[in-house]
Order: sequence, then C-alpha cells, then structure tokens
Amino acid sequence: MGAKARPSSAQGPSKSAITRERIITAAAQVLAERGYAGTKLSDIAERAEMKAGSLYYHFEDREDLVDHVLKRGVDESFRRVKTALKALPKDAGHVRKLETAIDAHVHSILQFGDVTSASLQLLRQLPPELQPRYRREQQRYGAVWHKLIVAAQNDGAIRDDLDPVRLRLFILGQLNWVADWPRTAVGDRDELRKEAVALVLHGVVPSREGR
Amino acid sequence: MGAKARPSSAQGPSKSAITRERIITAAAQVLAERGYAGTKLSDIAERAEMKAGSLYYHFEDREDLVDHVLKRGVDESFRRVKTALKALPKDAGHVRKLETAIDAHVHSILQFGDVTSASLQLLRQLPPELQPRYRREQQRYGAVWHKLIVAAQNDGAIRDDLDPVRLRLFILGQLNWVADWPRTAVGDRDELRKEAVALVLHGVVPSREGR
Repeated sequence: MGAKARPSSAQGPSKSAITRERIITAAAQVLAERGYAGTKLSDIAERAEMKAGSLYYHFEDREDLVDHVLKRGVDESFRRVKTALKALPKDAGHVRKLETAIDAHVHSILQFGDVTSASLQLLRQLPPELQPRYRREQQRYGAVWHKLIVAAQNDGAIRDDLDPVRLRLFILGQLNWVADWPRTAVGDRDELRKEAVALVLHGVVPSREGR
Repeated sequence: MGAKARPSSAQGPSKSAITRERIITAAAQVLAERGYAGTKLSDIAERAEMKAGSLYYHFEDREDLVDHVLKRGVDESFRRVKTALKALPKDAGHVRKLETAIDAHVHSILQFGDVTSASLQLLRQLPPELQPRYRREQQRYGAVWHKLIVAAQNDGAIRDDLDPVRLRLFILGQLNWVADWPRTAVGDRDELRKEAVALVLHGVVPSREGR
C-alpha cells in the first residue's frame, strides 16, 4: 500500500500532488456511482481524463487507490477538527469547543464532500477482512467527539439527558449528509457553517427569553 | 413495471406479501453492499434464501425489484409522516406538528433502515434517464417538510434565521443517518426517537431558564 511519495515544493503542492488529488476525487466519484465491486481502474482514469496506464505512476493498483479514498474522508475531518481545537485559547469553554469542532467538520465536508460521501458508502461495501483498519480510523476520530461531548455533559454545559454516543452520531450524521445535498441547496458556505453550529447548539425552537 | 399484485387476507399480510418483503429487504442489503452495477439477481436470491427462478414469481426482473427498493424508502417515510400528521388534533401547533413529523420519520428509518439507506445510495448510482422519477418522489416528500417549516417560521414558532431548505436537509440528514448507525448505538428505539425530537427542537445547550 502507500502511494509513492513525491516531494512538494515550498511554493505549494507539486504538480504530481495536484494530479494525485484529481485522481482521488475522480475515484471517489466513480466509486460512489458504481460501487466498490463495479468500479474499474479504467473508469477512474476516464473520469480523471488521463490514460489508465498513467494512474500507475501515482498509485500501485486499484486497491491502493481505494485505500486512499477511504482514508482521506476521515483523515481530512480529523486533521481539521484537531487543528481547530488546538488553535483555541486554553480557557475555551465546552460550548466553544463544540462549536469549533462542528464548524471544522462541516468545513471539511464542504471541501471533500465527494470523498467523504464515497468513503462512508464504501465502508459497507468492502470485503469484511478489509473493514477493521478503516473502522479503527473512524473510531479514533469518533473518540475525539466522544471526549468533547462527555466533558461538556459532565460540566453541565450541554444537556445530559441525551446518550453521548447517540448524540455524536446524530451530530455527525447531520453534518456528513451535507456531502449529499443538491448543489443548489448548499448556497453560501459560510452561512451553511453558521447554521449547522446554531442548529446543533440551540435547535429550531427559540429559547423563551429570546422571544 | 409494478409487481404482480397478490391478495392479502383479513388476517394480515399474505404469505406471498411476506415473501415479497423479504426479497425487497434482501435486495436493499445486496444493493447497498455491491452497488447498482454490481448487483445480480442471483445474489439477491441467495441473500433471500430462495432460488433465482422463484424471484420471477414476485418481480418481473432486476429493474422491477430495484424500482421497488427505490420507491419503498421514500414511500414508507412519506406514508407514516402523513398519517401521523393527520392524526393530530386540528388545532395542533407548529412545534407539535414538527415533533410529530420527526418522530414518524425516525420511526420509519428504524423499521426500514436497510431499504432507506440503500435507496438513498442507489439514487446516485442510477443511469441518468432513470433518476427523475425517483427524485420526484423525494421532492414530493420534501415539499411536506418544506410547508411545515415555512409555516412554523412565518408564525414565529421556530427561528427564521435558518434557510428553510437547508434546515430541512439538516433535519432529514440527521434522521436518515440513523439507518447507517452501528446496531449497538441504536439501543432503545423509543429513547432514540425522543432524543431525535429533543435535539432538533432544542439543540444541546440547555436554555437559560432551565439551568
């Protein structure tokens, strides 16, 4: 596994890195449309507008490419949420942390929607022996959320009458689904991010004092 | 299209109707795992534990079966939400209506999760010429939600600073995702339904007067 590494210059990603991204996105789209079993490397090459043979310059084989799609979805969200949380001041409260994690997660979905959507769908289509390694990644990411939620509940910053595991799944489901929205509904991305945060934190019913 | 109709007795669904349900569920599972292009009728028969030839007694062909899976997901939610809304007293308020719709939708997801999950995933995998008819069904169902949301916003029963289309997609995404939760997370279904309603209505932050 592991695609061949290419150096990236100080000016930004190398041409090769950009091509790899294009291939991963194309692979995600084709995998989402045709499924794991129905996707051929030649379909992916066609979508990426390159020759099938050239794919081998960037990825070892179909499985290597699938591996990248699967890891990318979770990895991007994980990386962004961790980075955003680290950037908070030390004394940031629980609600602020949650807000930050929600915003960072949606941000990654908006940017890597095709990949997230494909990877979540692919997970179920994988041969059973390949599933554990990806599930583990998902669980590691889930653990970050679990910690945030439980800490906030323990301190009374968020309601504690909701099961923390279900709460996490409700939140992530709501946010992940954005990847499958019709493009026309997405609209202004900054608005969408704000709305996602507002909805999770406060729901749709205005609090009494705000009326 | 249209599977051959079988009479159902006054005692409940006929044996044939039960078999048809088993086939539709099996088809949904296999389609979710292998994708539209990768699913053969023989795979579905194997999952339903019957001979491929017997499927033809219940469905005309692979496309007819796919058609049933695709329509079933939306249909069940649609039917339940409409029924639940109709059962409300005439003077039920907007929030009560929303609560009712959320609860009925989750209920259908909990019961027909495999089919909902498969049908939402399948929609993207369909050949473009087949998509419009299913999208239309989805849109008709979406319109019921849209009306609820806009009426509630207009009357100030729910906050009006959220775009009604995005709000609907956030809510349905959160609820639909339940179909893909790990079984262990689902837990008590009545609890889950209550939590889904509470979360959409009030979010995670306790309102100030409740603290």
